[in-house]
Amino acid sequence: MVGYPNKKDTYKEKTASAAHRGMTLERDINDTNKYYLETDRAAIYKKPTPITIVNVDYKSRETAKITEAYFQIPSTTDYNGVYRGQYIDFEAKETHSKTSMPLSMIHQHQLDHLARVVKYGGIAFLIVRFAVYDETYYVPAKAFLEKIGSSSARSVKREWFQENCTLIPYNYVVKVNYLRVVDKIIDKGDLQ
Amino acid sequence: MVGYPNKKDTYKEKTASAAHRGMTLERDINDTNKYYLETDRAAIYKKPTPITIVNVDYKSRETAKITEAYFQIPSTTDYNGVYRGQYIDFEAKETHSKTSMPLSMIHQHQLDHLARVVKYGGIAFLIVRFAVYDETYYVPAKAFLEKIGSSSARSVKREWFQENCTLIPYNYVVKVNYLRVVDKIIDKGDLQ
Repeated sequence: MVGYPNKKDTYKEKTASAAHRGMTLERDINDTNKYYLETDRAAIYKKPTPITIVNVDYKSRETAKITEAYFQIPSTTDYNGVYRGQYIDFEAKETHSKTSMPLSMIHQHQLDHLARVVKYGGIAFLIVRFAVYDETYYVPAKAFLEKIGSSSARSVKREWFQENCTLIPYNYVVKVNYLRVVDKIIDKGDLQ
Repeated sequence: MVGYPNKKDTYKEKTASAAHRGMTLERDINDTNKYYLETDRAAIYKKPTPITIVNVDYKSRETAKITEAYFQIPSTTDYNGVYRGQYIDFEAKETHSKTSMPLSMIHQHQLDHLARVVKYGGIAFLIVRFAVYDETYYVPAKAFLEKIGSSSARSVKREWFQENCTLIPYNYVVKVNYLRVVDKIIDKGDLQ
């Protein structure tokens, strides 16, 4: 018997591959930001992971070795920078859920920070990837905050993203080309 | 003999006290940023120190302990954020020199980053403190980059700061009130 894949196998393969891609959202965004930097378009960086340093071993100046440190809860989002004279600020989240994005993925601090950025006139958003479907959305922070403020649900359904957000174009060189969406927002003149 | 301080003693005391204050520039700026945040004016943060994590001890989820990590050279400045719809980006440096700020204090990466921020339309500057004189200057990045690009000197004289920069007002509550200077820049309409 020749081993043609049956439907179940095909489905499994697709899920596995999509799941693998889902793991790479952070790397895709870092590659994209590097591309923006190298093509002289924008200076947008991932912030370093905040840690509390307890002990450092200063054997020599060049090789100070941190021997005890702990992760902190971040007080802001992971990414920010400047593009076309605008302050850009966003958080990236990927989910493997087929139906919704759990709100437990995002800290209250980060939501408060996004609300402040909106208030102070920056461009604030989330990049949310549904790994199973390989869909990556540009999610305006203002709309997202209104959505989660209007309900006590602990997750946001995929349908909401489909109806209210913009799919971010993907290509091999620019993996999460979110500035294409930001361009439209700036050109329109309404930053939120 | 009553121990009135002679001139030499007075000078020493002043130097020691100023030197002590000089050590606190980072803390003064962090306090100021906290004040701006609490008074709902701006969201400007110090970026975490970038480190390379080599080993983590995952005894339990809550208490992951980093047991080996190293400091990285930062690729950007230390502070950025949003104020009045503008992208704000700066580096803070304090010197104990009486005559000049050594350029060895600032990495080439950081100068390149400031040049990019100027180009992309953000508000880019340095905050330079001469600790001995308790003088804290707002230094526009564009002017600073032009100055150091026009000469091969490895330091910038205090006189240059006196002639080309703005002293940042100090008070007990708002220790480095740099947004007072930024306000004038935004009102003037020329961000550099």
